[in-house]
Amino acid sequence: MNIVLLVGYDGTDLCGWQVQKNGVTVQGELERAIESAFGKFSRVTGSGRTDAGVHAAGQVCNFALADNIKIEPSRVADALNVFLPPAVRVLKSAEVPDDFDACRSAKRKTYRYSVYFSKREVPLLERYAVRVGEEADVAKMRECAEILEGEHDFAAFSSTGSSVKTTVRTVYSVEFIPWVDEIGENIFGVHMDVCGNGFLYNMVRIMAGAILSCGQGKLSVAQIKEALERGGRDLLGKTMPAKGLTLRKVDYGFELFGEE
Amino acid sequence: MNIVLLVGYDGTDLCGWQVQKNGVTVQGELERAIESAFGKFSRVTGSGRTDAGVHAAGQVCNFALADNIKIEPSRVADALNVFLPPAVRVLKSAEVPDDFDACRSAKRKTYRYSVYFSKREVPLLERYAVRVGEEADVAKMRECAEILEGEHDFAAFSSTGSSVKTTVRTVYSVEFIPWVDEIGENIFGVHMDVCGNGFLYNMVRIMAGAILSCGQGKLSVAQIKEALERGGRDLLGKTMPAKGLTLRKVDYGFELFGEE
Repeated sequence: MNIVLLVGYDGTDLCGWQVQKNGVTVQGELERAIESAFGKFSRVTGSGRTDAGVHAAGQVCNFALADNIKIEPSRVADALNVFLPPAVRVLKSAEVPDDFDACRSAKRKTYRYSVYFSKREVPLLERYAVRVGEEADVAKMRECAEILEGEHDFAAFSSTGSSVKTTVRTVYSVEFIPWVDEIGENIFGVHMDVCGNGFLYNMVRIMAGAILSCGQGKLSVAQIKEALERGGRDLLGKTMPAKGLTLRKVDYGFELFGEE
Repeated sequence: MNIVLLVGYDGTDLCGWQVQKNGVTVQGELERAIESAFGKFSRVTGSGRTDAGVHAAGQVCNFALADNIKIEPSRVADALNVFLPPAVRVLKSAEVPDDFDACRSAKRKTYRYSVYFSKREVPLLERYAVRVGEEADVAKMRECAEILEGEHDFAAFSSTGSSVKTTVRTVYSVEFIPWVDEIGENIFGVHMDVCGNGFLYNMVRIMAGAILSCGQGKLSVAQIKEALERGGRDLLGKTMPAKGLTLRKVDYGFELFGEE
């Protein structure tokens, strides 16, 4: 039986998605939990990897459940959660057609990059957002984001070391969700929600950095445009830290999970 | 010089506000930082204690800075942050009149209690909110909260072991802020913001539990009313966990911190 899982994780103390010999990874913990719960190893296929420190609200993965296991597909989540560390939880589980592959079947993904503006660190915001000392103009950020929407060769927005067939990707939308957290003094921030058909290595983190630099007046929209056209990674700012990044949602063009 | 501090902390791994021999506390860390930064011990007075595991977005405290220290009052925050653990940060500092006492001068406090509704734990929400498995009717919760607003003897809403002169307190308002976190499936929750002139030991956590029980139909509004009138702690539900509670704001009737 082909089982799909909706998985959430707090990446702070995890070594990313992909299984490795040393270090706690999401894939590794899921495979360990499957073996503990069902007595047999099964390879887990994720919609894609996430780096160490990156969070997920709705990562999707699938695995082959051994035929001798008799379990309601929606209860697989509970069976696995018994064996998972608190930082990783299966939120939903369901049966999917045999040809479903969480990676190859994925149609679009939405990542969120979260920053807040403050001269000093705010402990309650530090875990899932990145502090930015210098304020940014959200209108300018939007202007930069518009350049990046659509189908482009995003070679400039990729860290070296990745080997992919093509660096052309489509960004469907970049949305900005401002938020205010009124404490003694107002602290405000912005979530950048980037939806695309796929992302290159570090692409969202480099995009977020470039958009911010634009909002701060350190990079012009023309420079972003030039980087995109010339493919020059060096023209853009730094890659933003992992902890501000969350994989929100993976779309497959149909509902994976029914009502429980 | 009498210095007031606005302090934020992630209470997860802290043993609460009050200094103790073993265990990392906010007061203890602040006093250690003051001694390290300025070479002399000084007692720190908080607006009130918070329990182990409780967070703060805007705790307020004050201390006497030795006369020989020449420093811009607004920079005391930076001097102390150098010596504080990441879970504790001074967000603002300022000079206040000699008779200012963070505890006695406090006019009102606002606490937030955060819950989310889900059959399964959501890792990204678990740190600062409490999972509630059974959904609650927010309209019923509001109805219950209205009973609690105003000046009452809150004896029923206090854990045993606290010794206070009077158990009469005024709750100015209970506000409900619903929130939705759209991932694969909708997860929703509610923040309960309780503002009052002071709170008994565990009062907000007991209030939050009673309001929730009311919303779930486990307690009736009449039963809450009876508990309030009879002072019967046993009539109410359990004390909610510490991690869902955040001290948001302490008001003194005037602005403590100017523009920097």
